[in-house]
Amino acid sequence: MLRSHTCGELRISNAGQTVTLSGWVQGVRDKGSLLWIDLRDRYGITQITIETDKASKELVDLARTLGREFVISVTGNVAERYSKSDKLATGDVEINPEKIVVINAAITPPFTIEDETDGGDDIRMKYRYLDLRRNPVRKNLELRHRMAIETRNFLDKLNFLEVETPVLIKSTPEGARDFVVPSRMNQGEFYALPQSPQTFKQLLMVGGFDRYYQIVKCFRDEDLRADRQPEFTQIDCEMAFVEQEDILNTFEGMIRHLFKSVKGIDLPAGQAGIPNKFSRMTYADAMKFYGNDKPDIRFEMKFVELKSPLEGGVRRTGDVDLVSGKDFKVFDDAALVVGICAKGAAEYTRKQMDELTEFIKRPQIGATGLIYARYNLDGTIKSSVDKFYNEGELKKWVVAFDAKPGDLMMLIAGEENKARRALSELRLEMGTRLGLRDKNIFACHWIIDFPLLEFSEEVDSTSIGEKGGRWHAKHHPFTSPKLEDVSLLDTDPGSVRANAYDLVINGVEIGGGSIRIHDKNLQAKMFGLLGFSKEDAQAQFGFLMNAFEFGAPPHGGLAFGFDRLCSLFGGADGIRDFIAFPKNNSGRDVMIDSPSTIAQAQLDELMIALKK
Amino acid sequence: MLRSHTCGELRISNAGQTVTLSGWVQGVRDKGSLLWIDLRDRYGITQITIETDKASKELVDLARTLGREFVISVTGNVAERYSKSDKLATGDVEINPEKIVVINAAITPPFTIEDETDGGDDIRMKYRYLDLRRNPVRKNLELRHRMAIETRNFLDKLNFLEVETPVLIKSTPEGARDFVVPSRMNQGEFYALPQSPQTFKQLLMVGGFDRYYQIVKCFRDEDLRADRQPEFTQIDCEMAFVEQEDILNTFEGMIRHLFKSVKGIDLPAGQAGIPNKFSRMTYADAMKFYGNDKPDIRFEMKFVELKSPLEGGVRRTGDVDLVSGKDFKVFDDAALVVGICAKGAAEYTRKQMDELTEFIKRPQIGATGLIYARYNLDGTIKSSVDKFYNEGELKKWVVAFDAKPGDLMMLIAGEENKARRALSELRLEMGTRLGLRDKNIFACHWIIDFPLLEFSEEVDSTSIGEKGGRWHAKHHPFTSPKLEDVSLLDTDPGSVRANAYDLVINGVEIGGGSIRIHDKNLQAKMFGLLGFSKEDAQAQFGFLMNAFEFGAPPHGGLAFGFDRLCSLFGGADGIRDFIAFPKNNSGRDVMIDSPSTIAQAQLDELMIALKK
Repeated sequence: MLRSHTCGELRISNAGQTVTLSGWVQGVRDKGSLLWIDLRDRYGITQITIETDKASKELVDLARTLGREFVISVTGNVAERYSKSDKLATGDVEINPEKIVVINAAITPPFTIEDETDGGDDIRMKYRYLDLRRNPVRKNLELRHRMAIETRNFLDKLNFLEVETPVLIKSTPEGARDFVVPSRMNQGEFYALPQSPQTFKQLLMVGGFDRYYQIVKCFRDEDLRADRQPEFTQIDCEMAFVEQEDILNTFEGMIRHLFKSVKGIDLPAGQAGIPNKFSRMTYADAMKFYGNDKPDIRFEMKFVELKSPLEGGVRRTGDVDLVSGKDFKVFDDAALVVGICAKGAAEYTRKQMDELTEFIKRPQIGATGLIYARYNLDGTIKSSVDKFYNEGELKKWVVAFDAKPGDLMMLIAGEENKARRALSELRLEMGTRLGLRDKNIFACHWIIDFPLLEFSEEVDSTSIGEKGGRWHAKHHPFTSPKLEDVSLLDTDPGSVRANAYDLVINGVEIGGGSIRIHDKNLQAKMFGLLGFSKEDAQAQFGFLMNAFEFGAPPHGGLAFGFDRLCSLFGGADGIRDFIAFPKNNSGRDVMIDSPSTIAQAQLDELMIALKK
Repeated sequence: MLRSHTCGELRISNAGQTVTLSGWVQGVRDKGSLLWIDLRDRYGITQITIETDKASKELVDLARTLGREFVISVTGNVAERYSKSDKLATGDVEINPEKIVVINAAITPPFTIEDETDGGDDIRMKYRYLDLRRNPVRKNLELRHRMAIETRNFLDKLNFLEVETPVLIKSTPEGARDFVVPSRMNQGEFYALPQSPQTFKQLLMVGGFDRYYQIVKCFRDEDLRADRQPEFTQIDCEMAFVEQEDILNTFEGMIRHLFKSVKGIDLPAGQAGIPNKFSRMTYADAMKFYGNDKPDIRFEMKFVELKSPLEGGVRRTGDVDLVSGKDFKVFDDAALVVGICAKGAAEYTRKQMDELTEFIKRPQIGATGLIYARYNLDGTIKSSVDKFYNEGELKKWVVAFDAKPGDLMMLIAGEENKARRALSELRLEMGTRLGLRDKNIFACHWIIDFPLLEFSEEVDSTSIGEKGGRWHAKHHPFTSPKLEDVSLLDTDPGSVRANAYDLVINGVEIGGGSIRIHDKNLQAKMFGLLGFSKEDAQAQFGFLMNAFEFGAPPHGGLAFGFDRLCSLFGGADGIRDFIAFPKNNSGRDVMIDSPSTIAQAQLDELMIALKK
C-alpha cells in the first residue's frame, strides 16, 4: 500500500507514530516560517505542517511547488497540534513530514473541489470524475451503497433470492418505448433492453422461486425530464402464495428497516386503528381529497368541495352545492368548486395573493383564477367574491372548511379533473410556503385500489387502438382486477379496480406494484381488452400465458425506484447526483461524449443502414 | 399468506398443529384405502396422507383429480408418520388434510420435474420456468445468490463501495465486438453496451473513490461457445494507492472468504516460503512447465524438455538435448521435444496408448504423434522408439523425468508453441484418467508477469494495423508495463512484461487484472504502440487521458467471471445452469423467442433501415 493510514484516520492516540498518507492536495498555505498542506482523500483531511527553518531545503522547495489536486505521498511523524480544529475529525493532530513524493501533478481543475463549488451543472458533468471528489456527491453515492447493502441483507434474511434476469430481451409494444439492440447473429432481428424484468420475475414465480428480488438497471427510451434517466435502477421484487396485504406488510418492513439502519429513524405508526402500519388511502380518496395519486401527507389541508360534480348528471348522496344560483357565473358554470383551507394565512397580502393567482395560472397548471375568502382573526369574513356572497353564505363555507379565525380559504372552479390538478399544485405550494414540508419528516403511505384501465384517445397500431383510442393498463397488462369487479370487465371496464398499490413518501411515488394475473384465460381477456388480437397476444406474450398452464401460483410484487429512494433519503429533489455517471436531458454522457457514430464496418456486420 | 408454513419446514415438534401448505403436486400414489400426495415447494416436500375411508368423499374425489404440477393449498393436521423417511427433512411427519383447494391446474409438463430429468437441453431451455423447479437448477441459483451476498459483505467490510456504472456507453475499436444501441434522440449515433466498466472504474479512482466494486452485467457480441454467453456477470473491482501485491492479497482474501462462508472450506496455504498465500507462477513458467497460462495444479506432472528450443538459433544455459543425432528424424527436425511422466501408467495397454495418440491427433489439438517410454516395474525400459535409442540413452530420459519404475513417459515433438499446447491437453487428459482432478479439491494460484503485448498478423483499421498486423494489448490498453521493462517499449515491445495477473483455480481462469497506467504520456505511448493515431486515441479515450492530468492516483484492479466462479463452486463444468435465463449458442432466448423482428415504426423513429 502507498499509505499506512487514510487521511481521515489519525487521532491524538497516534501521536508519535511515523505514518505515510497519500491523497490530493486540498490547499497549501504558506506563511513563510510555516507552511501547511491540507491532504485529502475519501476519508477526510489531514494537515501537514512544515516549519520551513527546521525542514530540509529540498522538502520546503518541493512543498512550494505543490498545486491544488496534486497527488502526493507524505511520510512523517504524527504530532499534537498547537491549535486544534474541531471542524476535522483529525483536527487534534498534524503530520511533520520527513518526505514528500509527488505521485502525479495536476493542472488546475475547471471548478473548485469544495462542498460549495463554483462549477455549473454542465462543467460538473463534463468533468464528473472531479465532481465525484466533492464531499456532497461522494456522500450521496456512499448513501446509495449503504441502501443497497441494507436492502439486500434485509431481503436475504426473509429468504428472498436475488436472481439476475437478462438485459438482452424482446421488444413488446405495450408500455414505454424500448431501446433496441440489433443482433449480428440473427440478422434483421433485435433484442430490447428491459423496461423492467416484469415477465421474467413472473416466470420465476411459475418456476417456484417464491421470493425474488433484484437491484437492477432498467431502460426507457423516453424524452427526458429533470427526474428521468434513460437508464435507471429498481429494487424489483416478487412473491408467490401471497395476497396484497402480505406484499404491503413485507415491503413496509423493508422501508422501515432502511430508515432505521441508514438514517437512524424509527418511522411512526400509521393511521388510527392500524398501529405500526403505514396509512392506506384508496386512489379514489387520493384524487378526491388531494387531487393527486401521490399526495404529500406531511400536512393535512384536504380538499373541500363547495360544489360537488355530478356523475352522469346525477347528484349523489353527500354531495354539496353551497355556491350555485348566486349570479356568480364562474361557479354556476363550473362542474366542480373545490378548495383548501390554509391555516393562519388570512393575513396574506394582496401581493401574496397575486403571486398565488399567477402561480396557478401558469400554463403547466392552467387554472383560470383563484377565489379566496379570509376568515379574519376578528371573526369577519372578507372574500374576493363579496359581490355575490353575503356573510351568511360565507359562514357556510367556514363550516364546510372547518376554518378557524386567521385561516385563508382558497377555491378553484372548473372542469373536475383540471380543477383538482390545479388545486393539488396550489396545496403543495401552500404547504411549502407555510413550512409544512419538512425534509426531515417522512410521511409514508400506500395508495391502493387503483383503476385497472384508463382510456386513451390516442390512435396506435393495435387492432382496437387504430380505430380511435383504446383502453390502456393503468399499471401494466399483468395486473389482476379485484375479484369483486371482474364482472365489470365486460360492461364497464373503466370502473374496474385493480389489486395495485403505490408507496408514496412525501408526495413522491417511491414504488408500485400489483397482484398479478396467474390464470391464462383472464390474461388472454386482458390482452383482448387492451386491443391485442389473439395472434398478437400469443406472439408477444405467448411464453407467459403458456407458462400459466403448467401450474402458476398466485403471485404479486412491486418495484421501487432506487435512484429516487436514494435521493429522498439524501434530502435532495433530483436523482442526478445519486448516480455516478448520469446522462443529460438529451440522453448524452458529456464526459465520454456518448452516444457517438460507429464505424461503417460495424453497421455492415449488423446489416443495418442509417437513413438520412 | 396462502400458507402457514413452507413444505420444508414441518418437524415432529409441529405434530398436532393445524397448518396450511401451498405448493406443487410432485406426485400422487393411490393405494385405494390410502392416498398420498407429495407436495413440493422451494423449501422441500411434505407428504399429505388421506385415509380414504375416513376422509370426506369430496376430499377424496378431489385428491383423485390431482395431476403432477397442480398448484394446491392443503389445510390439515400435522401427524407423526407411521413409517418415517430419512430422505426428507420433513420425513417424520405427514399432513392429514381437512381441506384441499386447487389453486391452479396444470397440463402435463414436457419433461419430468425430478433431479434427474428426462428432458434434453433444448426442451429444458424452452420451458426454463419448469426447469427452474428442479432441485439442481434451483440450488445453483441459490448458490449464486449466496456468493453475491458474501462477496458484497466481505468487500463492504473493507470499505469498498459498490458503484453502478452506466450500461449505455460508447463503442470503442479496441477489444471484442460491441453490442450497439441506436439513439433516437441523437440520430445517426449509437450507444454501446459495456464489455466491462474498465474506463469508468478508472475514472472513479481519479474521482477519489479508492475502493470500488460492482457485480455487473457485461456484454460481448462474439461467436458463442459452450462456456460463453453474450451477457455475463463480473465481480469488478478497483483500488487506488496500491501495488500489485496489495491487490493479490486483498482478493485472495475474498476468494478464501467465499470458500469458507459458502462451502465451509479452509483453503490450504500456498507454496513453501509464502505461508497463507496462494502460490504464484510467472506466465513464462506456466507456459514452460504446463504449456498453458491457466495450468491445473491439482497435480504436478510438469513438462520436461528432452530437447530445448533454441532462441534466435542459440542454445541457452540449462538447455538440454538428449535426443538429436540418433537418426530419428522426427526428433532431429523438431524445435522442441517435451514430455510428461505419468506416475504408475507404465502398464497402460496398447489400446490405451492408441486412444491417447488419437486424442492428441484430433484436429483441435493437432499433434502429429505420441512417443512414449514405459519404465517397467522390473526396471527395464520399453519405448516406441527402441529402434533409435538404446537402454543407456533411455536411462537419461528416466533421469530427466525423475521417473520411477511403473511410470510412463510421454513425448511430443514439433514446433515449440504447438507442441506445448498439445502436451498441455495430454497432461490434462492424463490427470483426468489418473483421477488427479478431484472436484472437491481447489488449487488456487496466481499467474503473474504476463507479457504486455502480443503481435497479431491480422489486418485491421488502425493506422498501423492496416499495413499488416500490429501489437495488441494482451490484457487491455490500460495495463501498465513493469517499471524495469519500460525502456524496452521502443526496442523490443514483445519482451515487455506487464503488471498483470490472473487467478486460476483448477485450470480455470477465474479472474484477471492489472495495475493500470495513471500517466497521460505513458498511456498515449501505449495507444501509439497499439496503432492508434493521436487523433483516434484522443477521440476514443481522450476523456481518460485528460482525466489523468487532474491528479490521478496509482491504481489497479481485477474482475472475476462470476458465472464461472459460481459454476466452479457448484462443481459443474458449464456456466449455463448457473444463469436463470441463459441464451443458446446462437444468442437466442428460445423461451421468449428473442431476438425478434421489430415494427417498421420503431426502425423509422430510430432512422435506421435493414439491409438485405
